[in-house]
Amino acid sequence: MTKYVYTFAEGNANMRTLLGGKGANLAEMTRIELPVPPGIIVTTEACLDFYQEEGGKFPEGLEEQIRQGIKYLEQAMDKKFGDANDPLLVSVRSGAPVSMPGMMDTILNLGLTDVSVQGLAEKTENERFAYDCYRRFIQMFGDVAMSIPGEKFEDALAELKNAKGVVLDTDLTADHLKELIQEFKAIYREHVGEDFPQDPYSQLLSAVHAVFASWNNERAKVYRRLNKISDDLGTAVNIQVMVYGNMGPTSGTGVAFTRNPATGENALYGEYLINAQGEDVVAGIRTPEPIDHLKEEFPNIYDEFHRVAKLLEDHYHDLQDIEFTVQEGKLYILQTRSGKRTAAAAIKVAVDLVREGKISKQEALLRVDPAQLVQLMHRRIDPEAKIEIVATGLPASPGAATGKVVFTADEAEARGNDGENVILVRTETTPDDIHGLVSARGVLTSRGGMTSHAAVVARGMGKPAVCGCEGIKIDAESELFVVGNETVKKDDVITIDGATGHVILGVAPMIEPELTGDFETILDWADEVRTLDVRANADYPRDANQARQFGANGIGLCRTEHMFMEPSRLPIVQEMILAGTPEGRRESLAKLLSIQEEDFYGILKAMAGYPVTIRLLDPPLHEFLPKVEELLVKITELRITKKDPERLSQLQELLRKVRALAEFNPMLGHRGCRLGVTFPDVYEMQAQAIFNAVSRLVKEGVEVYPEIMIPLVGIPAELELLREIVVQVAEKTKEREGVQFEYKVGTMIELPRACLVADKIAQHADFFSFGTNDLTQTTFGFSRDDAEGKFLPAYIEKKILQENPFAVLDEEGMGQLIALAVEKGRSVRNDLHVGICGEHGGDPESIDFCHRTGFDYVSCSPFRVPVARLAAARAELLNRNK
Amino acid sequence: MTKYVYTFAEGNANMRTLLGGKGANLAEMTRIELPVPPGIIVTTEACLDFYQEEGGKFPEGLEEQIRQGIKYLEQAMDKKFGDANDPLLVSVRSGAPVSMPGMMDTILNLGLTDVSVQGLAEKTENERFAYDCYRRFIQMFGDVAMSIPGEKFEDALAELKNAKGVVLDTDLTADHLKELIQEFKAIYREHVGEDFPQDPYSQLLSAVHAVFASWNNERAKVYRRLNKISDDLGTAVNIQVMVYGNMGPTSGTGVAFTRNPATGENALYGEYLINAQGEDVVAGIRTPEPIDHLKEEFPNIYDEFHRVAKLLEDHYHDLQDIEFTVQEGKLYILQTRSGKRTAAAAIKVAVDLVREGKISKQEALLRVDPAQLVQLMHRRIDPEAKIEIVATGLPASPGAATGKVVFTADEAEARGNDGENVILVRTETTPDDIHGLVSARGVLTSRGGMTSHAAVVARGMGKPAVCGCEGIKIDAESELFVVGNETVKKDDVITIDGATGHVILGVAPMIEPELTGDFETILDWADEVRTLDVRANADYPRDANQARQFGANGIGLCRTEHMFMEPSRLPIVQEMILAGTPEGRRESLAKLLSIQEEDFYGILKAMAGYPVTIRLLDPPLHEFLPKVEELLVKITELRITKKDPERLSQLQELLRKVRALAEFNPMLGHRGCRLGVTFPDVYEMQAQAIFNAVSRLVKEGVEVYPEIMIPLVGIPAELELLREIVVQVAEKTKEREGVQFEYKVGTMIELPRACLVADKIAQHADFFSFGTNDLTQTTFGFSRDDAEGKFLPAYIEKKILQENPFAVLDEEGMGQLIALAVEKGRSVRNDLHVGICGEHGGDPESIDFCHRTGFDYVSCSPFRVPVARLAAARAELLNRNK
Repeated sequence: MTKYVYTFAEGNANMRTLLGGKGANLAEMTRIELPVPPGIIVTTEACLDFYQEEGGKFPEGLEEQIRQGIKYLEQAMDKKFGDANDPLLVSVRSGAPVSMPGMMDTILNLGLTDVSVQGLAEKTENERFAYDCYRRFIQMFGDVAMSIPGEKFEDALAELKNAKGVVLDTDLTADHLKELIQEFKAIYREHVGEDFPQDPYSQLLSAVHAVFASWNNERAKVYRRLNKISDDLGTAVNIQVMVYGNMGPTSGTGVAFTRNPATGENALYGEYLINAQGEDVVAGIRTPEPIDHLKEEFPNIYDEFHRVAKLLEDHYHDLQDIEFTVQEGKLYILQTRSGKRTAAAAIKVAVDLVREGKISKQEALLRVDPAQLVQLMHRRIDPEAKIEIVATGLPASPGAATGKVVFTADEAEARGNDGENVILVRTETTPDDIHGLVSARGVLTSRGGMTSHAAVVARGMGKPAVCGCEGIKIDAESELFVVGNETVKKDDVITIDGATGHVILGVAPMIEPELTGDFETILDWADEVRTLDVRANADYPRDANQARQFGANGIGLCRTEHMFMEPSRLPIVQEMILAGTPEGRRESLAKLLSIQEEDFYGILKAMAGYPVTIRLLDPPLHEFLPKVEELLVKITELRITKKDPERLSQLQELLRKVRALAEFNPMLGHRGCRLGVTFPDVYEMQAQAIFNAVSRLVKEGVEVYPEIMIPLVGIPAELELLREIVVQVAEKTKEREGVQFEYKVGTMIELPRACLVADKIAQHADFFSFGTNDLTQTTFGFSRDDAEGKFLPAYIEKKILQENPFAVLDEEGMGQLIALAVEKGRSVRNDLHVGICGEHGGDPESIDFCHRTGFDYVSCSPFRVPVARLAAARAELLNRNK
Repeated sequence: MTKYVYTFAEGNANMRTLLGGKGANLAEMTRIELPVPPGIIVTTEACLDFYQEEGGKFPEGLEEQIRQGIKYLEQAMDKKFGDANDPLLVSVRSGAPVSMPGMMDTILNLGLTDVSVQGLAEKTENERFAYDCYRRFIQMFGDVAMSIPGEKFEDALAELKNAKGVVLDTDLTADHLKELIQEFKAIYREHVGEDFPQDPYSQLLSAVHAVFASWNNERAKVYRRLNKISDDLGTAVNIQVMVYGNMGPTSGTGVAFTRNPATGENALYGEYLINAQGEDVVAGIRTPEPIDHLKEEFPNIYDEFHRVAKLLEDHYHDLQDIEFTVQEGKLYILQTRSGKRTAAAAIKVAVDLVREGKISKQEALLRVDPAQLVQLMHRRIDPEAKIEIVATGLPASPGAATGKVVFTADEAEARGNDGENVILVRTETTPDDIHGLVSARGVLTSRGGMTSHAAVVARGMGKPAVCGCEGIKIDAESELFVVGNETVKKDDVITIDGATGHVILGVAPMIEPELTGDFETILDWADEVRTLDVRANADYPRDANQARQFGANGIGLCRTEHMFMEPSRLPIVQEMILAGTPEGRRESLAKLLSIQEEDFYGILKAMAGYPVTIRLLDPPLHEFLPKVEELLVKITELRITKKDPERLSQLQELLRKVRALAEFNPMLGHRGCRLGVTFPDVYEMQAQAIFNAVSRLVKEGVEVYPEIMIPLVGIPAELELLREIVVQVAEKTKEREGVQFEYKVGTMIELPRACLVADKIAQHADFFSFGTNDLTQTTFGFSRDDAEGKFLPAYIEKKILQENPFAVLDEEGMGQLIALAVEKGRSVRNDLHVGICGEHGGDPESIDFCHRTGFDYVSCSPFRVPVARLAAARAELLNRNK
């Protein structure tokens, strides 16, 4: 006969598959002699055998084994199931081998009947409590086990309160509750077609049946499919004796952490309530007391709890979050789990545990969630401060900032450069606004998603941004925005928190980033373990310096278009684009050459000793010109007012040129290496600027490792052609300047076709850097600027996608292309250097993918570098034994 | 000792690899005893052995074998190489196993020296001829074998003519030419560093060396790489005795076809010149005579030639294009090759050859180029007509049309519907212009590429279009366009030819499409062979009827958005999109439901008995709304003039809504199934309209096979969700109407991600139809609307791409994705029906790919159906034994 039922005492932590996660945990606590209320577990095997029969049927022997289990509990507690005087009551919970939502909710107080409820009332000398337990039990059992719509019971409760003229549930008397129980039983009868069961075993078997059935409900099935959890696991059922913290002055309930979850300090931290149930703590009607007070009030209980807490922490080697109940002077542990904690606490606890000799350095690395580290990298609003949040947008770039509101990039720049703290508020930003973003303390937009221009640029700069904040209505012309009933004018002060998306009127108190010694320690340990290099995306020397401070091993992406966008340079760029003659064009290029040379000199010098990947010009040329719409409006105005015919005809001419460059789908247009192919002089100028800077630095004795990256290659001949241009400039420069230097030429892999013909492309490439932003766009056919504002939210909500693929790399689809490209590339060139420079380079899950796929490095924004260092170490540890 | 040199008599047609294509062909003609001037062939093996040595070196024995070969020729011709009286002269030509440009040009008259030229002069009694031969030889040898820049010789020639005061080369006397020879020899000496060789063997060996060297020149290497031709083939060298048609009145030269290459008529067709060389025919100074005249002038020669012509045709089983020379009454065949012919001739010749029992039906299918068939499917301008072409644009949609110029779609519609012939002239067209395109005879645009909106729609309608015709400057406001010095006003008559891109002022004479009996015969034979079904893309019943006439096996793509665009419906569609309330939206959808039902009723009825694939709504909604730019101009006008404040505020409100829907990259935006996910009611309405129509037809006893296609799926859950909507509507309709019908639900595969997760998508799909237009866009990251106007021409020109990937399917890159998708799809569903409905479905090369990749059908525009039927048959034949 298969053993379908285990007592807690018979199991242990390793029996997860058979007993479920919750059951194995309870068994483990029992095994190490913690005061856990006794219980039994119906195995996952019973659940699977249940499904052997079409529609489900208890396997042979299960019912009898459950009855034996209850007998065991009766003996342990010296009570009787369904007893009229002192009834044994139990809770019933599902518990699968892996945690998953969608499974059956808990049923408490099972075993109560019209008879046993009186026994409970007498025993607890609290009639109201007993009947309240009973009505809750009927409600939970009806809802959870019998699928009676929950609102039926809620409506009946509301009606009764109405009839009795009371507001709170707690105002209902025992008699009221007895009335309510009659109502509830009627509802039960109506929906189920029979009376509420008065046999406790019948209640119990129905509850077990309901848990089994919940394994195959729609929600659970969808969750398993989406999370790739096998349908063949089944769920266990935990049946545990109920204990009560509201049985008088020597009873109570509480929650405590073994260490402080905010700071990591090694001291019990928590609170409790005397003569109360868990839900009373949550309801907030009475104020709980700090756990320390227990020491004075009930020293024995405190000592016992303290002992148990240490035992648990030692056992699990981690900070524990423990729920306990004291029933008539006896301590029971109801649950323990790894406690949630702040990033600061996570780091301190991990480092302390290593120092205490309890865990290894490598275990410590697995205890800190890299995504959390972002919290530590930025100023943030003091969570203790009383502030009023007037609107919430997308948390687009972490960090908090306070400043005066301005509505144009020009004003942000002018006043920001004068030392004022300003927040740039725009409907959305465009590359024209870069100079304003540079000088503002932060940016707030009412449109655009997590990868909108403002968001991407702000993250790159490590500058706070709240984007897509639809709650604010901007009237840029009047220089104000409306939020709720408030009108915020230019120069009014606001605070934004890009980690939460919050917008606050006025000044909010801040906490500065804490780079404690422990933080550094953890990252040093990470560096010992990781095999992936971590580089930073940085366009300016100041970003490069920042990146070095955060531990970057190089620059993985230096975009040159931001340099083109700076207000002092834009006119020269426009001149070059609009030049009517080859001479005019050459003249503009010559001016740009010397400017770019200084750019590259600065960044290469800042990263002395480290590689710097410089991407040649990428965006379509029209991005540097005025917008068609703006010109059209001005032209129409001038046409009608007839005020300035000369200006009109200039603008019309300009419009013609702008229109000739305009595109239907700029993302898929004349950009990247396509510019290099059609305007080789631009790439040649950039290459010349780089190698001029390199030559100067070499002469100054500075170590430089330039890597020239050709963007948007999809056809091997593109790279062949453009590589040749770069190589020729480099070799000529060496000769002319009489210096020697090393350099690499490679490409950004950001098109599906590039992945498909990666073997042929690799013949001309020293390195591949995956541009996963664009690769996501083309693989999915999603324009990120449009998708995030239009249909992606609906896709996430409807679970068509589990995550935004611009935030977390799509391993299922795009991952195949990347893996193929790496394999093909290395097949012709086994020393091909492979990295990623899309935003995914700073996402821990995506970094794990890069590690598994054999990348050499990841590159991300400077403020993400610590995250990536830790994530890279974890990727190594987690995949080591696979 | 390896045999490196073969005489023509020793080879045959099967020795291509060793003797090269040209050599094997000459040998074959010799073998069947045609009067070919004798010659010898240096093998490809000699070339490969030459390259065994770094830098190249004649292998041992080669020189001696060449000398032996010359001896053989001397004996055959009874002349001596370098003889002072009657020298043997030879030509030297390269000839690789596969034809390829970039190889060495021909050297003629080799063997001439200062001595032998006198012998030639005496023998031909034509001193001028002899010295002209000599100066040409020096020039060719210097240029081709010694890499002396050709212009050096050209300049010397020009100078001499100048000095002598003559205009034409032919005006130079023998003495002039002697002077020129001195000049040429000086040039030779200057560049080569030694005298022009006077030993004919030395000349010959240098020439052979030059042929070998040309195998590895840059142009040849690039060509081989691009065309995937192995570098290990090597080239042969053909050394053939020179014959001359200008040796007096019994000499001559000519070209003839064994059948008429324009009509296919079975009769010799060609022309000849007495006492002339081949280049005289080309130069056009004297008018050649028709080949028939030879019968009277030289009956023996004519008979001999006639015999040879028949022999050649019988031998090669195809129409031959023959070059011949008569030297002093003796006929020599210099070259024969399969003759180029018109589509009509190709068909007639192929069918006739089958009837004459010379080739099989299957061989006949291989003799007709499917791409040529397009010529027969449309009216065209009479090629004999004298017309003046004023501008040339892209040949965007074949066929010719004459009509009055109009500049707006509305006018085109109104006047077209009144029976006038009009040509719509626009800078470019948008979906708003559809009604004008429908009613115009043709369309001419000044912007846009081969896949611009106008081009695609016109091809779909089988309507002539010339696009991207930059030579015309349109001033739509003044209703005129300027081309060169001409101004064409509204109502002026023009003719366009979409097969050539020509624009002609006034009426041009036309030839109507010829669907001869032979054409039908060939297509019937194709149908017997092909395994691919051929469907048509058709949006309206009239297109469907056309498709049936051309032999389509069904409709592979019926786009529903064109139905939405019709002027009578667009307002309802706009109403639906802009509806402020759910009720308003439902009302508009109800109106659309009954309209769409009629659409589907019509098309399903027209295709009774055949499948019809209906694609649910695909374009982004803003395509149905006014353009932001237009609104901006109107609003600015109203704002300044203050004339109509009410209208202004309406337009401002409209602009807000249009802006909210506007997108940065519409191609990658909120379209396709993304609309279905976010606006399920639209797809539901369309499904309902389809199944209502199906129910009516079933009741009427009409056989219908509807296939509902969900566009732009990239995520399995999208299809799962939307399939469910369609299935529910279908099942409810069956129940409500009490009818039974079959239907399929499938998806368009047009995103890289769809290919990557095709196995998961196939779980919800009855069929895959590859939308290769969009798949090309996303795989390459090319917006076709932008690429074809901006950088693609440069890409083709610089050989970065060999072909426009929107015209010919990119097998190298995208082909991998398609093959992967078919394999993955069939791995979970082996009866998955697979087709293509992008424009590649009508391209022969792409059809071959589809055949090889296991497709079930291709779908193309109705006018391409005959092309596809033939191409499908050829694909089967050509791949049968692979």
